[in-house]
Amino acid sequence: MVNMNRRVFLAASGGMSVAPFIPQTSTQAPPAEVTRMLARHVISTKFANLPAGVRKEAARTLLNWVGCAVGGSRHETVDAAISALAPFSGPGQAGILGRKERLDILRAALVNGISSHVLDFDDTHSRNIIHPAGPVISAILALSEHRPVSGSDFVTALVLGVDVECRIGNAVYPPHYDTGWHITGTAGVFGSAAASGKLLGLSERQMLWAFGLAATQPVGLQEMFGTMTKSFHPGRAAENGLTAALLASRNFTSSEQSLEAKYGWVNVVSTGHDYNYITRKLGETYEISQNTYKPFACGVVMHATIDGCIQLHNEHKLTANQVDRVELKVHPLVMQLTSKKTPQTGLEGKFSIYHAAAIALVEGGGGIAQFSDRAVRDATVTSLRDRVSTVVDSTLHEDQVRIVLTTRDGRRLEKFVEHAVGSADHPMSDRDLEMKFSGLAEGILSPDRQHQLMDLCWKIEGLPQAGSIAQAAAA
Amino acid sequence: MVNMNRRVFLAASGGMSVAPFIPQTSTQAPPAEVTRMLARHVISTKFANLPAGVRKEAARTLLNWVGCAVGGSRHETVDAAISALAPFSGPGQAGILGRKERLDILRAALVNGISSHVLDFDDTHSRNIIHPAGPVISAILALSEHRPVSGSDFVTALVLGVDVECRIGNAVYPPHYDTGWHITGTAGVFGSAAASGKLLGLSERQMLWAFGLAATQPVGLQEMFGTMTKSFHPGRAAENGLTAALLASRNFTSSEQSLEAKYGWVNVVSTGHDYNYITRKLGETYEISQNTYKPFACGVVMHATIDGCIQLHNEHKLTANQVDRVELKVHPLVMQLTSKKTPQTGLEGKFSIYHAAAIALVEGGGGIAQFSDRAVRDATVTSLRDRVSTVVDSTLHEDQVRIVLTTRDGRRLEKFVEHAVGSADHPMSDRDLEMKFSGLAEGILSPDRQHQLMDLCWKIEGLPQAGSIAQAAAA
Repeated sequence: MVNMNRRVFLAASGGMSVAPFIPQTSTQAPPAEVTRMLARHVISTKFANLPAGVRKEAARTLLNWVGCAVGGSRHETVDAAISALAPFSGPGQAGILGRKERLDILRAALVNGISSHVLDFDDTHSRNIIHPAGPVISAILALSEHRPVSGSDFVTALVLGVDVECRIGNAVYPPHYDTGWHITGTAGVFGSAAASGKLLGLSERQMLWAFGLAATQPVGLQEMFGTMTKSFHPGRAAENGLTAALLASRNFTSSEQSLEAKYGWVNVVSTGHDYNYITRKLGETYEISQNTYKPFACGVVMHATIDGCIQLHNEHKLTANQVDRVELKVHPLVMQLTSKKTPQTGLEGKFSIYHAAAIALVEGGGGIAQFSDRAVRDATVTSLRDRVSTVVDSTLHEDQVRIVLTTRDGRRLEKFVEHAVGSADHPMSDRDLEMKFSGLAEGILSPDRQHQLMDLCWKIEGLPQAGSIAQAAAA
Repeated sequence: MVNMNRRVFLAASGGMSVAPFIPQTSTQAPPAEVTRMLARHVISTKFANLPAGVRKEAARTLLNWVGCAVGGSRHETVDAAISALAPFSGPGQAGILGRKERLDILRAALVNGISSHVLDFDDTHSRNIIHPAGPVISAILALSEHRPVSGSDFVTALVLGVDVECRIGNAVYPPHYDTGWHITGTAGVFGSAAASGKLLGLSERQMLWAFGLAATQPVGLQEMFGTMTKSFHPGRAAENGLTAALLASRNFTSSEQSLEAKYGWVNVVSTGHDYNYITRKLGETYEISQNTYKPFACGVVMHATIDGCIQLHNEHKLTANQVDRVELKVHPLVMQLTSKKTPQTGLEGKFSIYHAAAIALVEGGGGIAQFSDRAVRDATVTSLRDRVSTVVDSTLHEDQVRIVLTTRDGRRLEKFVEHAVGSADHPMSDRDLEMKFSGLAEGILSPDRQHQLMDLCWKIEGLPQAGSIAQAAAA
């Protein structure tokens, strides 16, 4: 169930306004030179062109990504990747966040991309469910350790990388995803190529070649979900895009119509498309504005319940023993995806709305620790979990919940969550992001180091060297 | 024209017996565990299981590939790749054939794969037009320099790698190709993973994971034809497959049904398939037996004409001045693809049947030198070219030609070529392969070194260290 419903599970953040997708037939002529328009956009956009809100979102995206990469850095998936590939790495040009190893920039891009996705806790574009930061930041942070990159140039590259991958993703979503591709890896490679190419100062023609080299290296089948290979996808997309930009910088030629050509990326990997998503309001709106961040370490359909239960926990300071029973009214999709009554592992806990409610009431959180094997086996939690019941209510949105908690002394406490925290309509505050960051970095970086690192992320625009973020994130 | 007709151009080797393709619908259940059957085949097959003819074909495939890699090694495409990526390479674990550089094994696999394909002169599977050697040998030769691999183990891995990629290719050809994928890069990655995984001694489960990691990294859109990125495809396929095997060897997990799963490779990258091509006679027949080698440095539809003109050149020792006119009767496809009357560059010469006839009569060859800018501008050749005429004859096969040459002194010389040399029905002899090898290595390796290297290829089975081939091929 985990795998097959992944798309709807991730996409089920209520409150999103998703424009209806009208696929174009391939007999319709593409707009002239879509790839060239994107290349020109990347080449010509300057830091000064970016609205303040866009720059701020870039800092939030960066901080969230750094926290996820540090938090994931000790995962066995990362250990396996480093152990397999470090013997073939070049000089220690770039660091692995949260660890002591340094690798060449291409390997570092791969490994940091893996770390940042391995907990399934990274950012999500609200329309196309791409995880935008992984392919882009993994590449440009490594590059920034190898050659001088100012914070403002870093922000510009980050914004453009996300813009390119998400515009391309929008143009083929959902048919590309429905074909079985993992869109973060397949569209992400363009984001990495664009951002890396921007920092390398590619000419327009070289940027077109970088896109061609990116197009020819899509990464990621959905069949890999549930295995370590899923988090390989954003990492390899970062590495492939950086490779594409480096090759293009040495005039390694490629197609100059890699998106729209008859046998180009769009036609080969998608059964439908709408190029307007790529070209519309180019340079006026930036897709990073549609980025969202997960407050809780599970799929978004459980977020409203966790949000509400944490609020009840904070407001009433109840012990589990004081709770007689809890009733949740939820959208049908919640029960379709997360109806495990008695999860046995942390991973199964991510698919149990009963566990989610109980742990949030008991511990006041929904982070990594609350979806561990320890948490789902905790006697207090399992006892309370058995007193949680659900009622399906189709009038609710997917990111809403109505909670009725009855105490043993007869009180009836109600909580209606209109939009779960972290959804597009109720974004995580900067403070929320900092709390999440600290939770992820706990035990890996000292509190002082955490604050120093968050400070660097918030101040990214003004940093003389963007690479200092990677150095501050080393263990 | 070059790009769009590439498939039919390459496939137009007459005399091939191509079984009709009957695509299966995706609602039909796949045979149980196709991926596992392939993994078991790779794990269990031993050198002693390989028939003598298969082993001999492996040596021929190796010799032909080494010649192509040496011959392509000085191409600007290879220069660009090395200049872009060498700064990020690990230790000099493996050599670049025909050059002095040494790179880590993954980068070496990439660059040798590029070299070996950049002249479009490497081997071609007669059914699915995969260039089988590039993805496989580029990977395992690099690996053989890094850890001890005997010649017999090398041959076993080579045969199995080609078997895996070509069986998978057969299962989706032609619909996969017609979708726009460059099958050498997309199926080739499985060949590299299988061969590399065999040498790394993967368990069955690890081999399944290696296939999963390969499946998720297909390389190559046909849109890239005509650019340097085309030869990037077999190189990157080699590198990706080797990466997949290395990761799997450290228990980096992946799907165990990466071919046949609903969102696995076959369903995602092809609109039709027939799994029988994968499972039929597994361990009884080997696809390397269907490998062919190009005698001439151009598309196969011109090969019969070159073959016949070289025979006339050798038999009659005519000077161009003695020739009054030449008439060629050819299959219609020849004129569809190669009708340029006045080519201006070596590349255009590859699409001129007139140039091909003239240069073969004048110089008695059809190698790299005969499709150079120099050759198409040679006054003697252009003068003779203008006296070549063509007649379309639908009763001929694509690999046939009827040549009528009239001399100035009134003689009428005829030559009918029933199957061009290099076609499946008239394979190149070992001696032909050696001549081709020498032509490719000329000016890069000394004649002594050429003979030493060819000797090592012929004797591959008995070599204590297969990696000695790479060392002997260094400049």
